[in-house]
Parts: sequence; C-alpha cells; structure tokens
Amino acid sequence: MMSMKVRGGGAFSGVLVIDLTHVLNGPFGTAMLSDLGARVIKIEPPGHGDDTRTYGPFAGQTSLYFAFVNRGKESIVLNLKEDEDRKIFINMIRRADVLAENFRPGVMARLGFSYEDLAKVNPRLIYASSSGFGHTGPLADYPAYDTIVQAMSGIMDMTGFPDGPPTRVGTSLSDLLGGLYMFSGIASALYAREKTGRGTHVDIAMFDATLAFLEHGAMEFAATGRALDRIGNRHPFLAPFDLFECADGHVAICCGNDHLFAKLCGAIGRAELANDPRFLDDVSRVQNVVALRAALEVELKKAPAAYWLTNIHAAGVPIGPLLDATQALSHPQAQARNMMIEAGGLKMTGIPIKMKGYPDEPIRAPAPDLDEHGAALREEFANGPPPA
Amino acid sequence: MMSMKVRGGGAFSGVLVIDLTHVLNGPFGTAMLSDLGARVIKIEPPGHGDDTRTYGPFAGQTSLYFAFVNRGKESIVLNLKEDEDRKIFINMIRRADVLAENFRPGVMARLGFSYEDLAKVNPRLIYASSSGFGHTGPLADYPAYDTIVQAMSGIMDMTGFPDGPPTRVGTSLSDLLGGLYMFSGIASALYAREKTGRGTHVDIAMFDATLAFLEHGAMEFAATGRALDRIGNRHPFLAPFDLFECADGHVAICCGNDHLFAKLCGAIGRAELANDPRFLDDVSRVQNVVALRAALEVELKKAPAAYWLTNIHAAGVPIGPLLDATQALSHPQAQARNMMIEAGGLKMTGIPIKMKGYPDEPIRAPAPDLDEHGAALREEFANGPPPA
Repeated sequence: MMSMKVRGGGAFSGVLVIDLTHVLNGPFGTAMLSDLGARVIKIEPPGHGDDTRTYGPFAGQTSLYFAFVNRGKESIVLNLKEDEDRKIFINMIRRADVLAENFRPGVMARLGFSYEDLAKVNPRLIYASSSGFGHTGPLADYPAYDTIVQAMSGIMDMTGFPDGPPTRVGTSLSDLLGGLYMFSGIASALYAREKTGRGTHVDIAMFDATLAFLEHGAMEFAATGRALDRIGNRHPFLAPFDLFECADGHVAICCGNDHLFAKLCGAIGRAELANDPRFLDDVSRVQNVVALRAALEVELKKAPAAYWLTNIHAAGVPIGPLLDATQALSHPQAQARNMMIEAGGLKMTGIPIKMKGYPDEPIRAPAPDLDEHGAALREEFANGPPPA
Repeated sequence: MMSMKVRGGGAFSGVLVIDLTHVLNGPFGTAMLSDLGARVIKIEPPGHGDDTRTYGPFAGQTSLYFAFVNRGKESIVLNLKEDEDRKIFINMIRRADVLAENFRPGVMARLGFSYEDLAKVNPRLIYASSSGFGHTGPLADYPAYDTIVQAMSGIMDMTGFPDGPPTRVGTSLSDLLGGLYMFSGIASALYAREKTGRGTHVDIAMFDATLAFLEHGAMEFAATGRALDRIGNRHPFLAPFDLFECADGHVAICCGNDHLFAKLCGAIGRAELANDPRFLDDVSRVQNVVALRAALEVELKKAPAAYWLTNIHAAGVPIGPLLDATQALSHPQAQARNMMIEAGGLKMTGIPIKMKGYPDEPIRAPAPDLDEHGAALREEFANGPPPA
C-alpha cells in the first residue's frame, strides 16, 4: 500500500529547503521534509561542519547521530561572514520555499539574515526558527539545552515515583518536540501560502512544545492551581492501569472499567478480588492502588511475562510486554510499518507519517559528507533565479 | 507580532474537518487544526458523547480533559448505524477537506466508511486515522492504551535510574505524539493536494510515533544491536549535564565542554576540580560521573537553588531551575508566548506553532456542549454540496 505512487515524489516534492539547522532539534524537523520528498540543502560552517559529525555512537567513521537526522540532504560549506558565500546564500534564498534555522535568537539578525531581511529578498519565503524559548519573551536569550528545557517545563517534575527524584524523559524530548512542531509549522505555512501567496516566520520554542504536552499537569493547574504529585507508572484516575512485575520481567495492564477488572481477576485465578470491597469500583481501586498492586503482583510474580501475556490477552484484557528499544525496533510490527529504514548502509528509524499513494521507501539517500555537494551547488547558485 | 493579520483567518481558514476522533490522541490533533483556523465538526455518539466528557479534573460541571482538546469545535450527535444520520454524515464528507478518526482499525470499515468507501464519495478527501499500532502489520488489531504503547515502544525501558524500575513518561506521550503526527500528516496532505488534486489516507500509529522519538536508543541499536541501560537524568556522553540537588531543590546544569566546566568549578568555589585528573576532559568526566556529581553536590547543597541560578548563570554556565507544571505554565515566558490561553472561561495550554501574520488569539471559542450545534448542522447538511 505504501509504495503505490500518485506521482513521482513525496508530499513535498518540488519544495526547496535551505537548511541552516544543526545538532538535533532543527535537523530532526528538516529530515522529515526530506523524507516526504523536499530537496534539503544543508549549509554547514567551515571547519568540522555540524557538531554532531563528531558525536557517537559511530559506525566506522560515520556518526550515527549525524546520519539519523541528516539523511537525504545535500551538504555545502559556506562562510556566512564572507561576501562570496553570502551571495550564494542569498541566491539560494531567492529560489527557496523554506529556510530553517535553530540558532539562538539574534544570531541570524547579526548576520543580516533576520526574517525581515530575507522576506525582502523573497516574500514567499517560509522562514522557520526553532529555539529553546522562542524569539519573544524574557527568556528569548536564555541558554537552552534539552535537559534545561525539560527541567523548566514541568515534565521532569511530573516523571518518576512519589518516593523518588524528578526524572528526565529517557530521550531528548524537548529537542525532538521542537523539531516536530517546526516541521508541522512549515507544512501548515506551505499550505497557507498556496492561498495567500505570502511566506511567514514560523517561530517554535522547545519550551512551548513541552508545555503543550503536559496534559494532566496543565489540566490540574487550570482546575486547582496546584501541581500534581509524581505517581510513577500508574494512571491518575484509572486502576489497575500500570506496569506490573512478573517472575522474569514486566507487563503493562490497562483495565478501564469494572468489567475488564473482573476478567483480569479471573485470568490470574483470583476471581474473588473483583468482589473485595477495596476494589469494587474504579474510585475504590484508585484509593487502594497500593494494596491492589500488591494483590495482583503476588499472582503475577508466580509466572513469567510470556505466560501472562498469552493468558490475560486471551481473557480479553488489554496487556502488553515491556520491550527495550532493541526489541521494539526489531518487532515485526515495526518492520511491517517500515519504521526501520536504511540510508547509506545504516539502519535508522523511519517516519511515522504514512500516506497512501505516496512513497515510503525502505532505502533512502544517505546523510552527506561535509561539503559533498559544495562544488555543484556553488555552480547551481552562482546566479539568481533563472528567468521564469 | 503574533496578532498582525495577513487575512481574516488562520493557516487552515476555509478547511472543513469532520472529526470522529474521541478521548485524547485524535482530538489533540484536530484541536490544532481548529487553533489554526479550520472549521472542525465533532461527531459524537448518542448517549453521553465523547467518553472524556465524564473525565476529571472538573471546573464546575465541565471536564477540563474534554475542554482542553475540543476547544473551538462544533458538536453534533449522529448515530452512524442509522440511515438518516448516515446520510447527513455522507453529505458532510462530500463537502469536507479532512475526515479524522481514531477508532481501532476495522471499526470504520464495518460502518461502511473505510477510506476506499469515502474516497469514492469525495476523491479529494484527506482521511486521517490515528491508532495504537496503525492499520497494517500483525499488531493492527492489538488493544492499545498509552501505557501499553509506552511499554512496548522502548521509551519506558529507557526512562528512569540504573537502580530503579522502568518509568512511564509523566504524560500520555504516545497518545499526544500520535495526535501531533496526525496533525502533521494532515497538513502535509493538504499541501500535496494543492499540487495533485487528490486526497489520501494518512495512517498514524502511536507505536511508530514513539519509536521515532527513541534517539540514542535507536542509534545504539543501529550501532551495536544492544539496548542502552537507564541512566537517570544525565547525558550519555557529556558531563556534567544533569539535574543536581541544592539546599532546597534542584537545578539543571549543562556543561558541553572543558571551558564551561572550568567556569562552573570557579562559580562554586572549587576551581581546582577542573584540574583533577578524574575530571580533566569530557571522556574522563563521563567515566567518573558518580564522583563528579558527588563533588559538585557537596558545594551545591550549601546554598539554595536561587543562589546558584544567579551565580552560575552569571559565570556563563547554562543552568535552569526545576519547575513544576504550575510554575512552568505561569512563568512570564509562557505568558509572553501566549502558551496559556482561555476558552469558555477556562485556562488551557496554547499551540506552539507561532506564525507571523496569522492570529494566535489569547481567547478561543469554548469546547461545545453535547450536540450543541446539532440542529443547525442537520439543516446545513440535509442536502449534498451546493452547486459550484
């Protein structure tokens, strides 16, 4: 289904993206544009180029970090403080649909390349910025790294156990959300431009992006003005809805109502628990969640996870295994959905946007060597746009 | 800047979305379409409508859960198994740009409303599905809740401390990512339709979405085939880059190089630590990260977080406070960026996509009462599309 083509390219076929992004946040966003068919030209600084070219883990000489988020892009080294290279950059902007950058706010303006500067050159340009705190507000200049944004956005305070410390999400969540929202904003602005004929400045903040994901934390703030306590792996108002220990590992079990709870009790050979006054309804089960968990784990610890996955699933109760990243990424479901692709001989995660009639190729173009396309691009953009 | 208008509406002004989504994942995605100017008609089942209308927390009689992700939408109750209501639904589809749904795969087909069915009615329709595991692959029918998808995708195994349990991200990450990718896919498909004239089926899986966010976990799998151990709040290959305890709370400190580390040592009155052979360079500091943390916290615990935030920041070292959701959402930066908006008299989180020249109103239309627009919508869609 995924490879049947309506036309040659992806959703963004014909779109030219000039990519000044570096490290993780911005490149993660522009990699999705490339995945969906845009032409993405990555501009790297003289010297060693994007910092992540030196980051591990490595496959031979190749940084997987760089390879993951720069697949399918072209690379040119430009010194944006030097006249000749600035001219090439401006020639690119004249023909570009999108400029993406994730410098600290102010850096592009000091180069003479603010949105206002470049909109004069190309009013149809979509100029996308992603930064820690955005281009407005008192923290616009505040230094931001993923760990700092996670700490300041509330997500770290909400993750972890009541008796444990605040916990960082085990991935660079704020960086990646910033990149995904930047991609979304670019797609939205490209659509809007079809109607208005005008470009815009898309201004994304990792901080805003993480706030938008607080869910119960934000709802509780709106309802009571208070912060939620950390509650570990359980659900705030459904039980049992948690991760449980078996003899050899963990399973997640989710019972959203009394009916499923009764089925679960039957499946673990403790049907009478469904009639225990502490566990009669969801409100009672949440109130007695520690006792409930203990009662269930007494049984669950008697057999391995595989046993419970078969038997509790057969009873019609939602259950899933705890998988590590290796198991998750090599799962037949990840394979069937083309979520592990290959680029330059390296395996990497695919794009979750599956669109019928558009390509989702299992093999993509690799990330470029530094300045790999420099000579060709200097020739292509030596002059302004060709006559229409 | 954010309120200067190019034209009356948002980026998706003029776009009609028929919204069959429910609970969190789908509604979170379609709420963004409404935020950016689309008209979103929410179809709810007879009885009590969307389940989340009964979910806490409440403000008076209103579920904040429902209000957050359904602001700005219209509501109509339709029984999609009944001829008269099916006719109204089909009339809506004839005029719609987007249909969004997050039923378990198979439910829409059994109603006679698969993508293939509805594309015959309206070939320009963008039909967006978001589900736990997607519409293809061996797990397509597997019951999915956020906790189960977090457990199966590797993110829970990667979050937490080396001596602690796997940890759920303190928000419904997989649900919300599914919704955000659905929104992104719809925006991409709307742009592509401007070029091709054709609609498509956007098929999003919460599982795929979470896999795409594994970052180091996926890179390590590609490099070595192994899973990473949990590492708590620290960075895998930079140190110090972590959350640290002060006398009265925590701060996040991020030193990406030796120069910043030396400044940090000076700021805490332990300049000699920069010359300690265990901490001479980043590789050594990561190897000795437990000792490094202990040495830094001895000093940090002598004064409150506010003291260190001032003094370490003044020394030029990236540092940020640990904030809870309440502090984060009431931060002047969140206010300046319009990240707390109001709808129906309730405070809620705004949208992180800020586009110059398009509205980002601080007050939005409220979430609808059940069937609030039913009578008007039945009249509007009693017949097929008006003649062009």
